[in-house]
Amino acid sequence: MAPRKTVGILGGGQLGRMLTHPAALLGIPLLILDSGSHTPAKQTLLPPQPHSHLDGPFTSESHIRELASKCDILTVEIEHVNADVLESVEKEGLCEVQPSPKTIRLIQDKFRQKCYLSDKGIPVAPFAELPIGPSEKDVLEITEKLGLPIMLKAKTLAYDGRGNSPLQSTDSESIKKSLDFLGDRPLYAEGWAPFVKEVAVMVVRNKEGQVKSYDAVETIHRESILRVCLAPLRGERGVNARARELAEKAVGHLEGAGIFGVEMFLMEDGSILLNEIAPRPHNSGHHTIEACLTSQFENHLRAILSLPLGSTELRVPSAAMINILGSSSSMDPITAMADNALTVPGASVHLYGKAESRKARKMGHITLTAESDSELTERLRILLSAQPDADPKWIDPIAPPSPAPSHSHKKPLVGIIMGSDSDLPVMLPATKILDQFDIPYELTITSAHRTPERMVKYAKEAAGRGLRTIIAGAGGAAHLPGMVASETSLPVIGVPVKASVLDGVDSLYSIVQMPRGIPCATVGINNSTNAALLAIRILGTSIPSLQHATDAYSKKLEEEVLGKVEKLEIDGWDKYVKETLKK
Amino acid sequence: MAPRKTVGILGGGQLGRMLTHPAALLGIPLLILDSGSHTPAKQTLLPPQPHSHLDGPFTSESHIRELASKCDILTVEIEHVNADVLESVEKEGLCEVQPSPKTIRLIQDKFRQKCYLSDKGIPVAPFAELPIGPSEKDVLEITEKLGLPIMLKAKTLAYDGRGNSPLQSTDSESIKKSLDFLGDRPLYAEGWAPFVKEVAVMVVRNKEGQVKSYDAVETIHRESILRVCLAPLRGERGVNARARELAEKAVGHLEGAGIFGVEMFLMEDGSILLNEIAPRPHNSGHHTIEACLTSQFENHLRAILSLPLGSTELRVPSAAMINILGSSSSMDPITAMADNALTVPGASVHLYGKAESRKARKMGHITLTAESDSELTERLRILLSAQPDADPKWIDPIAPPSPAPSHSHKKPLVGIIMGSDSDLPVMLPATKILDQFDIPYELTITSAHRTPERMVKYAKEAAGRGLRTIIAGAGGAAHLPGMVASETSLPVIGVPVKASVLDGVDSLYSIVQMPRGIPCATVGINNSTNAALLAIRILGTSIPSLQHATDAYSKKLEEEVLGKVEKLEIDGWDKYVKETLKK
Repeated sequence: MAPRKTVGILGGGQLGRMLTHPAALLGIPLLILDSGSHTPAKQTLLPPQPHSHLDGPFTSESHIRELASKCDILTVEIEHVNADVLESVEKEGLCEVQPSPKTIRLIQDKFRQKCYLSDKGIPVAPFAELPIGPSEKDVLEITEKLGLPIMLKAKTLAYDGRGNSPLQSTDSESIKKSLDFLGDRPLYAEGWAPFVKEVAVMVVRNKEGQVKSYDAVETIHRESILRVCLAPLRGERGVNARARELAEKAVGHLEGAGIFGVEMFLMEDGSILLNEIAPRPHNSGHHTIEACLTSQFENHLRAILSLPLGSTELRVPSAAMINILGSSSSMDPITAMADNALTVPGASVHLYGKAESRKARKMGHITLTAESDSELTERLRILLSAQPDADPKWIDPIAPPSPAPSHSHKKPLVGIIMGSDSDLPVMLPATKILDQFDIPYELTITSAHRTPERMVKYAKEAAGRGLRTIIAGAGGAAHLPGMVASETSLPVIGVPVKASVLDGVDSLYSIVQMPRGIPCATVGINNSTNAALLAIRILGTSIPSLQHATDAYSKKLEEEVLGKVEKLEIDGWDKYVKETLKK
Repeated sequence: MAPRKTVGILGGGQLGRMLTHPAALLGIPLLILDSGSHTPAKQTLLPPQPHSHLDGPFTSESHIRELASKCDILTVEIEHVNADVLESVEKEGLCEVQPSPKTIRLIQDKFRQKCYLSDKGIPVAPFAELPIGPSEKDVLEITEKLGLPIMLKAKTLAYDGRGNSPLQSTDSESIKKSLDFLGDRPLYAEGWAPFVKEVAVMVVRNKEGQVKSYDAVETIHRESILRVCLAPLRGERGVNARARELAEKAVGHLEGAGIFGVEMFLMEDGSILLNEIAPRPHNSGHHTIEACLTSQFENHLRAILSLPLGSTELRVPSAAMINILGSSSSMDPITAMADNALTVPGASVHLYGKAESRKARKMGHITLTAESDSELTERLRILLSAQPDADPKWIDPIAPPSPAPSHSHKKPLVGIIMGSDSDLPVMLPATKILDQFDIPYELTITSAHRTPERMVKYAKEAAGRGLRTIIAGAGGAAHLPGMVASETSLPVIGVPVKASVLDGVDSLYSIVQMPRGIPCATVGINNSTNAALLAIRILGTSIPSLQHATDAYSKKLEEEVLGKVEKLEIDGWDKYVKETLKK
């Protein structure tokens, strides 16, 4: 085929390895610079003939220059590269570099990065610079300004918790300990961001400055190392869109093409602060390989080569990424985690081909895709429980266990609500049906007239929490189903509850006769059974197994009637009425 | 990590290449035997140190023996291998071979394969053996037995149309031409199977004989070469399950572990005939890389290595595979097809890294995944239209163009039905809403009372055709919605149509008061607008963009009312009523 441009990558680790796959698929020649002949990336793509991958440090000027002489474009899989050499290579016209060395240099210094983004109007946690060789007094002054606790951070070469030290109190000993831990590196301090969630968005940017973001994910760290990502981000309506918007805006202010990982904090008041940006594929985007229409790796190559950017859409309703970290020098726990994942449907194992394990080293990851958050959660529990440092206290909030009978599921697909506890007896048959079909649901009371704000909040948040349909029961001047339908984009199923007068006709008319524009799916009076069966049919449009379950249920109904036909034949109708119907 | 067994592959083409990716992910060492140092498979995985991939023909005994000496298990990416040597290698205990050499040998001879399967009770097209060096008379005798047309086939080394010759008439010239084309190879004849569709199912089998099938696909050939696969197979209820069952049964009768491609004919009467089996990954399973939870390639490795078989479930509602074939020695058309695919959301390009193109050579493929058949069809048209031999006559039946206004879509997500053409004026607003949201739908008349068989057929087939919900309008003793709901697993939305008496209350009660067990989602009398909006909310549970569209629609309703509020404020109510409401 007409040759594509040759791409040189500084760094041959797992990120480079994951770039080799789309490179092979698209016929893009890759040359890798890293020390060693069998680094993760070098194992999975031969260099274009007659070249060899380069063996040397990706910070070495001579090696970078040699790579540049053989390539049309250089890129990085790690930001801790020699930005000066990259800048010279570009200025001398030896080779194009993407993303721009200027951007790489900016990002290498976390303090400068923060200043730059803050100047551009991107919200960040409060921060301040420390002088070189800071004294206790310097630190005290900053804590007065930023409050406590603060995070002392090295400006450069800090990642995965290295180069960061939290400071909880201002006694001499704590300050000394923190400063000693960080050594003599240039430092700055950040005020504490009391986030409710850590959030990340991958953004791809082409040379014309067009940006496309992926759905936001929740990132879950343990001891400052990323352990789990959940996609898409769940939460109040619009939080995903707001996170994407902020990430796109931030990347819009940088120069050059490629994929960027944007890490953020979601605060209690719903605001979002930017934490930091990585100018390369990022661990919080690994799920995109299976879960999205175009992976972050393919989009990075497309961006730097001026090919059309690929769709960033999710291909599945729910996905997770679980890192496989080394726990010691032994490979056995790695194999055990991978083997466990082979037993979990929807889990895809990615080992990085590293020859040696050590504590906290990224040895691989597992992507999990599922047709719902509840299916994901169930399978995620199995994967997390197989990790060497599995701890129920850590796992339960991420992947909660199934609820006790008669209690709400934490990741429901169906919400059952009613205006009053007096409606409970009418609504209980719906729970029995959902239990029978093994559908995760929640049940609660919210009244259109007595708790209108609670009702509106429930309706507004339902879709963002992963619910797919709402069953609402109400009697008399039954407003609940219609009002909820007005505040959500989900299908709402209304159950007219028979009140003390009018035989339920009042409820039925109040629910079914909605004005044009806001539909409410109404079932028969007091027939919550059918509401649940309708909810299952709705879920069946995206979960094929539920279509089969519905067919099987109908078949069972048919068989029950046929059984009665036979009994009627044998017993005769007089006996049948006496023994069967009068009971 | 604890070393996995080393796998040796006979053949280093694109199937081997696609095996290297899961091998790298799972840490499985692979050694490849094929002629050349840069075959497709050798480009994408280094051999385990200190070995090299083997350079030589995969039919050569000495090379196979050398490979066996370095591996724990041998497998094939092509069935035209030296089965005798593989059998010796296994018998001598030199190396395990999967699938069993016995199975490979059986499959190499299409006539023996057919006899074996037929003996096991697998339905196949009628067939008969021809003597070596057949005369015109021999052929005539067979046409008397099997009828015309027949297909004359070489028993061995026949694929992609090579080694097959159809015979339409029994004149001497035709017979001579066919026999000359096939040369002096051992032949057999097959009676013509007048299929309506060609169908394929991938089946993975482990050493314990456990089999798991993937969803059936429709395979579309042109000049005997596979061009397009559509997954899952659409058609009458149960056809997918029946195809899978037959394929599982056939593979259940073979020996050894691995993935098998089972090609079948779907006949007009709904019966299925087995055509042939490939004992390896197959072109009709390439979509499984993106579209299924475990790819056919990963499952092949899992099966031969006694790892747990992975889930074969589809991860997306709709998928297609389009082969990229060489049209000449020029690479340009290949690049053009790949470049075109980069502009299509959901299209994943797979180039095989072959150095030379030639006519009809498999140079790559494109996988397309989509959230519905209609989205798939629209994008498939773009991909097929970019092929060098694009021909609307061939493309239109596979990926039909959008319908003219007021005509049914060929791949609808919503079906609108009504009992009588007199209901049309009431049901038309539903079409306007669906048009506005760009939802593919069909509209037709079927009556519960006047065309009961048509109604039952419609309801039974709806889910299998890819519909996700049905809107049914009926008046008076309105039976249509409830009866349709009884014959489908889809959610059915009932629109009570107001008849000449009783103000539509008869219709409403007839639709909403369904017995427990069969739900019907009822909307207001004559309110087909809300039926369509409810259908869109139901579709929105699997198509996230429709949730945003619903939110935007609600926002627009709100703005319309706020506009009226303002007008009322400015004009005063007297003028407002006169000018606005009385119009």
